[in-house]
Amino acid sequence: MFQATVHVTIKENVLDPQGQAVEGALHSLGFGHARDVRVGKFLELTIDGDNREEAEADLREMCEKLLANTVIEDYRVELVEVDGEEQ
Amino acid sequence: MFQATVHVTIKENVLDPQGQAVEGALHSLGFGHARDVRVGKFLELTIDGDNREEAEADLREMCEKLLANTVIEDYRVELVEVDGEEQ
Repeated sequence: MFQATVHVTIKENVLDPQGQAVEGALHSLGFGHARDVRVGKFLELTIDGDNREEAEADLREMCEKLLANTVIEDYRVELVEVDGEEQ
Repeated sequence: MFQATVHVTIKENVLDPQGQAVEGALHSLGFGHARDVRVGKFLELTIDGDNREEAEADLREMCEKLLANTVIEDYRVELVEVDGEEQ
């Protein structure tokens, strides 16, 4: 089985209102030296199976179909094979 | 200046309803071999300054005060010094 992580981030040329809100709040709290805040998602999941290519293809399909909105978001995936005994 | 990243994740012993919803949706889409889905936040920001200790202390304070709810969430931070010319 594989331990998978997915980072979903807003594309660079797309406005990030949530990031702007966080930046404003940080400034209000006195962190004026923080800027260019971008907020994304981070997902961790377990994928059963022992074929890395298959697991990675499935994971990318999950991102395309559900986890990321590829019109405005980018995603990157990482897979680490882990011992099935942990199951 | 520093390029900072923050991962905010739900603590292991805390229920993650968003992760459960994503897992249910993945199963509906035919990805029955995906499980233990956890959804967190991923933030990227720039911190002005040239003192790494200070920047990291500030970043941790931002997490404690705003970015993470430390009752139910963990956070981890990374800092990479970048060339100020990019500003």
